Amino acid sequence: MGEHGLAVSRRHLLAGSAAALAAGAGLSGCVDTQSSSRSGGGFGHTVEPFFGRHQSGIATAPQAHASFVALDLVPQGSRSARATLEAILKVWTSDAERLTQGRPALADTEPELAERPARLTVTVGLGHSAFERIGLAHRRPRGMSPLPPFSTDRLDPRWCGGDIVLQLCADDPMVLAHTSRVLLKNVRSLTRQRWRQSGFRNAHGSNQAGGSMRNLMGQVDGTANLHDEAAFDRHVWDDGSEQPWFAGGTVMVVRRIRAEMDAWDELDRSGKELVVGRRLADGAPLTGKQEFDEPDFEANVGGIPVIPPTSHIALARHRTEDEQFLRRPYNYDDTPGSGETTDSGLIFVAYQREPSKQFVPVQERLAAADGLNPWITTIGSATFAMLPGVEEGHALGGSLLAT
Amino acid sequence: MGEHGLAVSRRHLLAGSAAALAAGAGLSGCVDTQSSSRSGGGFGHTVEPFFGRHQSGIATAPQAHASFVALDLVPQGSRSARATLEAILKVWTSDAERLTQGRPALADTEPELAERPARLTVTVGLGHSAFERIGLAHRRPRGMSPLPPFSTDRLDPRWCGGDIVLQLCADDPMVLAHTSRVLLKNVRSLTRQRWRQSGFRNAHGSNQAGGSMRNLMGQVDGTANLHDEAAFDRHVWDDGSEQPWFAGGTVMVVRRIRAEMDAWDELDRSGKELVVGRRLADGAPLTGKQEFDEPDFEANVGGIPVIPPTSHIALARHRTEDEQFLRRPYNYDDTPGSGETTDSGLIFVAYQREPSKQFVPVQERLAAADGLNPWITTIGSATFAMLPGVEEGHALGGSLLAT
Ligand code: HEM
Ligand code: HEM
Repeated sequence: MGEHGLAVSRRHLLAGSAAALAAGAGLSGCVDTQSSSRSGGGFGHTVEPFFGRHQSGIATAPQAHASFVALDLVPQGSRSARATLEAILKVWTSDAERLTQGRPALADTEPELAERPARLTVTVGLGHSAFERIGLAHRRPRGMSPLPPFSTDRLDPRWCGGDIVLQLCADDPMVLAHTSRVLLKNVRSLTRQRWRQSGFRNAHGSNQAGGSMRNLMGQVDGTANLHDEAAFDRHVWDDGSEQPWFAGGTVMVVRRIRAEMDAWDELDRSGKELVVGRRLADGAPLTGKQEFDEPDFEANVGGIPVIPPTSHIALARHRTEDEQFLRRPYNYDDTPGSGETTDSGLIFVAYQREPSKQFVPVQERLAAADGLNPWITTIGSATFAMLPGVEEGHALGGSLLAT
Repeated sequence: MGEHGLAVSRRHLLAGSAAALAAGAGLSGCVDTQSSSRSGGGFGHTVEPFFGRHQSGIATAPQAHASFVALDLVPQGSRSARATLEAILKVWTSDAERLTQGRPALADTEPELAERPARLTVTVGLGHSAFERIGLAHRRPRGMSPLPPFSTDRLDPRWCGGDIVLQLCADDPMVLAHTSRVLLKNVRSLTRQRWRQSGFRNAHGSNQAGGSMRNLMGQVDGTANLHDEAAFDRHVWDDGSEQPWFAGGTVMVVRRIRAEMDAWDELDRSGKELVVGRRLADGAPLTGKQEFDEPDFEANVGGIPVIPPTSHIALARHRTEDEQFLRRPYNYDDTPGSGETTDSGLIFVAYQREPSKQFVPVQERLAAADGLNPWITTIGSATFAMLPGVEEGHALGGSLLAT
């Protein structure tokens, strides 16, 4: 099948031809079941699995670069929103199963840019509004109930909401650029971009010493987090007990949080450490010696707690087993508007079964009293039902849309 | 000296206190004379030299990430623009000599973010307007005469000009974010940002196989370029014969060139190869087998040249020895405006002694007939005199400003 043939079959696919899709899906080759390197010659050849019980990009060790794109469905005349969404998810499944494994997408116009996926993951979710739009509001997972307003929110609508989210992560910025171009152009007439957030962590291989990433406020960020499979099963992955189609999925909360760097600069080092409850040098709790030492919230000197009760970690720490969630944040540093020095902060990303029992109580405590509040401002917020993973031969969203 | 003490001496420095500067400069430690790795534990510790006959960041093997920031001088009441520029260059010298070597800047509020510079280079240049503003128009290098308009230009003023350029390159995006924050906040009252362009290439270590980078149009880009020291001495580095202060400097041309990706997608593979004169798969010339084979512009089939005379390489190739220059481009991929699919292209960067004899004749041929023209649009243009390098104890721009 030549380039032209592929382009034609791609158009069929977008027109919703199930037969063309089946043919496309049948082209898929071998699939790795866990992160693996195909050949020598640089980490670019390392791949993350595409198929499985869960989508990759959540439990996956964070890649260096990420892009979060929120899209709205555009009405398509007589075609239902549900059929449109189905077409999008089929195309994306076909594209992602190839691109993540280092193979060009169908009719990829820059196939060489697909050769070294550098742990590319493509993770797809649906916003609150999408369920209404496709006539399946009764299938919306309970975890998707809207977040309450928080007193510290300063939300700008241009960083909020969205029918669909496309989360792309890779260790190479070229891969993200190529992947987002392929995935977005293939659905351009069906969607309208609502927002896009680009984030980064340290480059892959820059630090072999281990330890968590730092954010742009200079803090070690990511120390206390979920790690083992049991914790993921309990706190992150939906078990399908409420919405059977959602088993293996999870709810993502994306908050765009601006760091007020000019003010932060004015605070001295010990002030910064008291605000968080951990040391800047190594991320150790103020009561410990090393990053992964357990903080001792009872420790005090003459009755004054060593870790202030309004410090970020004292308030953010789960007070019940249930309040835990996975954090997978990225730094952002965009071009500032005129007159500003810096436009940077954190794309705070949390995954959990049900935000109202996990993210929300923590965020409420933080909104009320977090010592960090004067130096951070939440300017964006969105919640997405991240679809369950799929097995080969199936398309993302199948369990929701098929029946 | 505590944090506060440093902050105070920094303020002295900005106020133009030469004594405070001398003290600051005296703090500098050991300096490597070429790219070297200080310790194991990841490439983050690799450093590029700061001091030398030339600024680093030009002959330096291109790092994965780059940021180009153009600033204008802001009038400072009774203080002359020349004194303001001198203060800026002193602070940046002091900051850059430390940050590039993996040491925090003076009064660095996030010193840990300076620990792994990942081949950070800081390269500074002056625009045409700066020489007038500081009353040294007679010292402007001949190479800084304004570029003529080109018929294919579609320049947007928001990507043009600037009194000062700050070029930052590193293999880690965290390093760029921290460095640009430090350097820009230290001069914020003295400058106004005109534009900022962020670019990237493949991540460091993603591809060990060698070969040139690819751009987002999918082409191998960077094959024919200057490599050896003799070529740099002849074509890139100024010899000071016209403006003695400029010996060791060079002129940078930055062109922001949008790739018209939607149209490019419509062209088939062989069309794309004819437009450039090289193969997409490996970058080999249409008359050769491997990337670095010499193109044969005479080869023809029944009188029809194999490499079209209007192909990009046929027109871009130097027709006289003098027309050569160093290309060091970066890809950009920004968030597209509403309704657009992609906002990407090339930050085309060329270094040479005198653009009117090097960049300009080539650009004129390209503007007239380049087969690539329908798929690219130049939307930004700026030219800067990249200052000569300095030795330890001296500040950038010293040879221009000291006398
Ligand atoms: C720009 C905003 C934020 C910054 C700079 C920040 C920074 C930090 C830092 C430095 C730590 C300590 C190291 C670690 O355990 O990772 C931490 C911990 C934590 N943060 Fe944040 N954070 C931010 C926003 C949030 C938000 C919005 C939430 C949730 C509502 C949150 C929840 C947590 C939790 C649960 C922990 C772990 C607490 C523990 O169990 O010790 N953070 N954060
Ligand atoms: C988006 C715009 C551009 C693209 C995509 C592009 C792409 C390429 C490609 C693929 C090559 C062949 C590989 C190589 O030798 O590097 C090349 C070569 C070259 N380009 Fe460009 N280019 C662009 C703009 C320019 C501009 C504005 C100039 C200068 C005015 C220029 C000057 C050259 C030169 C001198 C060569 C080497 C020719 C030779 O000696 O073989 N290019 N370019």
